[in-house]
Parts: sequence; C-alpha cells; structure tokens
Amino acid sequence: MPTEERSAEVPISESDLVEIIKRRVREGNFLGTDEVGVGDDAAVVRFDSQRLVLTADAMVEGVHFLSDSMSWHDIGWKCIVSNQSDIAAMGATPEHAVLTLAIPATTQIGDLEDLMAGVVGALDQFGGMLVGGDTVVSEVTMLSATLTGRLCDSARALTRNSARPGQSIAVTGPIGGSSGGLAVLNEMVASKGIREKSEDQSRLLEAHFRPTPRVDIAPELVGAGVECAMDISDGLLIDLERICVASGVDAIVNANRVPCEPSLMNVFPDQARRFALTGGEDYEILYVCDADAVTQVNAKQPGVGNDDFGVIGEIVDAKSDGGEITVLDECGQVVEFGAKGWDHFAR
Amino acid sequence: MPTEERSAEVPISESDLVEIIKRRVREGNFLGTDEVGVGDDAAVVRFDSQRLVLTADAMVEGVHFLSDSMSWHDIGWKCIVSNQSDIAAMGATPEHAVLTLAIPATTQIGDLEDLMAGVVGALDQFGGMLVGGDTVVSEVTMLSATLTGRLCDSARALTRNSARPGQSIAVTGPIGGSSGGLAVLNEMVASKGIREKSEDQSRLLEAHFRPTPRVDIAPELVGAGVECAMDISDGLLIDLERICVASGVDAIVNANRVPCEPSLMNVFPDQARRFALTGGEDYEILYVCDADAVTQVNAKQPGVGNDDFGVIGEIVDAKSDGGEITVLDECGQVVEFGAKGWDHFAR
Repeated sequence: MPTEERSAEVPISESDLVEIIKRRVREGNFLGTDEVGVGDDAAVVRFDSQRLVLTADAMVEGVHFLSDSMSWHDIGWKCIVSNQSDIAAMGATPEHAVLTLAIPATTQIGDLEDLMAGVVGALDQFGGMLVGGDTVVSEVTMLSATLTGRLCDSARALTRNSARPGQSIAVTGPIGGSSGGLAVLNEMVASKGIREKSEDQSRLLEAHFRPTPRVDIAPELVGAGVECAMDISDGLLIDLERICVASGVDAIVNANRVPCEPSLMNVFPDQARRFALTGGEDYEILYVCDADAVTQVNAKQPGVGNDDFGVIGEIVDAKSDGGEITVLDECGQVVEFGAKGWDHFAR
Repeated sequence: MPTEERSAEVPISESDLVEIIKRRVREGNFLGTDEVGVGDDAAVVRFDSQRLVLTADAMVEGVHFLSDSMSWHDIGWKCIVSNQSDIAAMGATPEHAVLTLAIPATTQIGDLEDLMAGVVGALDQFGGMLVGGDTVVSEVTMLSATLTGRLCDSARALTRNSARPGQSIAVTGPIGGSSGGLAVLNEMVASKGIREKSEDQSRLLEAHFRPTPRVDIAPELVGAGVECAMDISDGLLIDLERICVASGVDAIVNANRVPCEPSLMNVFPDQARRFALTGGEDYEILYVCDADAVTQVNAKQPGVGNDDFGVIGEIVDAKSDGGEITVLDECGQVVEFGAKGWDHFAR
C-alpha cells in the first residue's frame, strides 16, 4: 500500500521479480511435491517429520510508511501483523519471530522502545515468540520480520492454486478500512490536522495503522475443509487475480456483495466500494471453497448472522490461461477498474 | 565491517539496541531453558520434538557495501554466507532460506539476475534451500536473509556462554583476509584502479567479496565435544569479548599465535596482525574448549599439520564481571588496541 507515489521510470515489475526468484529456486534447488515455495503467502517446508511454515515481510520508510505520519509503535506492530496474516492465510498459527532492524544511527532510544513495544504487542496478542534478529545502521528505516508457523492440520496448507470452477469466493470480514484510513490521513495532512476527527474517521485510521491479522479464523477455515486462501494485502482484485492465475481459473465478482467496513460507508459513501475492491492491507482472508464450507466458517464467526456472509462471487472456467476477473455491479453490468491493487514496482 | 565512516553524532550503540530487544524478549515472551534466544549467533527453538536454529542477517548499501565497488553477485553471495556462518557457529547445518529484497524501482533485471545467482550460488555450495521471501521498493538497496538450521547433535547447540577458565581459545583458520581485501580495495579506489593487482591482492579481494562460511567444520566441532563457539563477523577481539562477557570470564590472547592469511602477510606485513585481531567478516569460527578437543578438530581439518593449530590464547578467571581481554606480544608485553572491532552503531 503506497503512502507515496513513485516515478514512472520502471524497468522492473514485482511479478518480473517474483519470476526471476522463482526460476532461481527451481534451477538451483529442489522443492518436494509436498512443499509450497516462492509465490504463495508463505513457504511450507519439511523439517524432519514436521512441516514448518516460513514467511518474511518487510516495511520500508517512504514506501510502506512515512516516519512523520506513523508512530514507531505502529510501524513495529504492522510489520509483525503482516507476517502473522501470511501465516494465518496458509492455515497455520505463528510460532517464532526473527526481526531485522535497519535504523539511522541517530534514532532515539525512546523511539526504539516504542517500536519494540509494537513488535512485542502484536506477538503477544496474535502469537509468535521473538527469538532473534539483526540490527544494522541505515539511512532509511526498514524492518524485516520472518515468522515461523505451525499448520493447524499438519497434513495440509491453504494454497493459492487450489480454486476450482463452481466454488464460492468469500472474504472473512469487511474490507476497505485500511485504504479509508489512508484517505483520512491524507485529508488530515492536507488540512494540516486542524479539523477534529469523527469517531468513524478514528476507526478508519485505526484500521490503517493498527490492523488485526485473522489468526483466529485460520483453524476454522482448515476445519471447514477450505483448501484455497490468501490474505488481502495488496487489494481484493489483485489478490483474487493471483489465486485465479495460480489455479488456472477465472472469477466473477459481485461488487455490491463485497462487505465494506461500516465506518468507510459513513465517511466515504461514494468511494467505499472502490476502496474495498482495490485497497490493500486489510488483512482479512480471501478464500475459495464450496458453499457449505462458507456456512461452516460463518457459524464459527461471532456476530455473523447470515450463512453466506462474505460471499462475493464465484470461480468459473478459464477463458484462456486463467486470471480474468469480471466485476459486476448490482444490475449485472460489467464494471471496469483501472488498477486492481498495489504492485510495489508498478507505480 | 564498514566501507563508509559514519558521523560522530550517535545516541545509540549496538549493544544498547541488543539490550532493548533482549529486555523485550524477556518481558513479552518466554524462552525455555533449553532454548537460546537473542544475543547468540542464532536462536535455537523447539519445534515439536525437534530443535530448530533460526538466524537473520542483513546487508545495507552504504554500510556493508558500496554499490559501485561490489558486484550484485557478491552482494547476494555475502548476505547468504553471513547467515550460513551464524548457523555453523551454532553447531548446525543450513536448511532453508527466506530472502527479503529491498531495491530501487530502477534496478535492471540483469543486476537482479546477478544478485540471485550469488544468493543461489552460496546456497548450493554451502547448504540451504531458498523457499520464499518478500520484495519491496526502496531508495537504498538492502537484503535481509533468514536461514533455518538443523543441529548436528540434536541435544545441544554451540553457545557463547559456555567458556570456562583454563580452556583454550582457538580459531578454525587464518583470519584478517577480509580486512586486507578492504584495504586493497581502498588503495585501488585511491589509485583509480590504474595499478595492476598482484596474485596476493586478488586473493585478499576474494576473501573480502566472496568469503567462505565454515559449515564444513561445524560437525567436527560438535563431534569433538566443543560447547562454546561463535563466528568472527565483527572482529576477533570484539567477538571474543562477547564470549567472555556471556560466560563471565576473562581471556589472554597471544597476538603472535593468531594465524594470519598468508597473502595478508605478503601485502601488508606491518598491519597483518592488527587486521587479524580487529578486522571482521572472516567467517572463521572462534571456539573455546579443552586442549585435546582442539587436537581432535585439527585432525579433521585437511592440510592442518600441527595439533595446536589455531590456538591463540586461554580463558582465565574474571577479575570483575568478565569480558576483559589481555593481548600479549611475542615478548609477553601487553599490547593496547583502541577499537576491538566493528560496532555498527559506534562510529
């Protein structure tokens, strides 16, 4: 999710990069058929008789945050949460964390204490034990965390390549709140913070700065027999496209069925749907399964009344290689979206 | 190891930072007594019935390397090697690797390919399978790798806090080559690369840019009953001080017994000893054990003739809290060293 626009001079895209890395993985090493490698939310590897989930996620100043608009606490918090979310999206729970901290040599100790409070706060609340790391000086602040996880069902992980035509596409909760929070932040910066914040605006800022990973729902997804999932980190449409490409299928999404954060509807009634479809960093889980599995998952979610809560569309046969997403409005008309979400290298 | 000097305005030191992190680990989480946490080369954690070694090490442009004097290949290589070395120093072998790559959006694909060739080259040669990671844009290039490892003896790891008075201090091979390489590089830059390189100079540059982690020696150290070890990454004296502080002991080092890289003696005869004592990034292993264990380790090292190769001194009782290192010259006179090695935050 950008807090800064980048120049247009871009010789490399994120998917180029993933391809380069993927090819190296296949050339240089061997991934057994029961293991999941580069390209999913996290890797799943054999460790003796066990299977270990491994993921890494970084936050860079000027890209993921601006140091003057995000507290040190929240920077630490969000870096851990983004990793916990990847672990949850594999159908696993966080176990251990290793943190690499690149910070300017002039950083104040109090700021560091705040950052570590955010790191440890997220670990305490959502799981994972900080066991090590590395510290280096850098002109730009950057955090990189690696988390290990344990599969809820040791026999299988939730993957991106297991969506099948006819299955339902669902999300585990309302989305768009984080993008809404970014929009509120930008408005505040533009108005120099003079205007008072409404309760809804505060809630959106909270969604942006202090997101919640759905570690609670991972065991329920696995228990309901779901096989295909990923977390919504770059945006619903771009992340769904990744599932469809990996699975060789297409998808139809009903825009009006996408659950929006209520505060988002109040603050940005006209843009709420767009934020929900293309905004990133909500850390809800996008999953694909048969309709009765959605019912089972919803039965375990507190406060969710209807059986088909979160169902936003359907997987269909691929017209060509897969990865085509058709978005329909409430009248069944096709809606076009320019950008589907956030490619770190494409702006 | 610096390739750039930093300003003197420094409110925070690396040991401050490690203390902040350590305290957070203890406050927020629990490390069982059979686990090793923040402060050693790597963490050792329980994963079901197994014990897993976890380490992270980063390389930052302008701190660990200058992009115009180090090839992309070698940047990738060295980032992996520094992690493999940490794994070896715990008495373990590398298993899996996760890579976080922060690079400018204008990076060329060919450069990326070179970088990945270095990453995978080191993994193929010294162990570890690349299974995942994260890619982000950043103004400053930064790599952070996390490696998992498997203990050679599942019952124990090599630690820093297990040195006892009367034991020998030894290194697994000649050191100082990497600092010598950096000095050659600086000379080349100063002379604008006009002068031709000698074979010795080339060897030192190789030691600096393309170091070798001692993954081969880890099983031999464990097999010989060694309990205390760490890799020489920041400099022999500063790293030995860390062992002494952790173990609550002092040490006496005989400077003339420190094995120097032969090319270093040829190129920098007057400074070789200082490079060997205070230079970093050699990635040989510093270990402490009874004299007969050194003999056993040397018996397994090809090309090492004498039983006490690498023995550089002795652990003695602490005069106060431990951590005092006395360096003696060939006449038994005390030698003073201003800086013992590289503190990332202290220059």
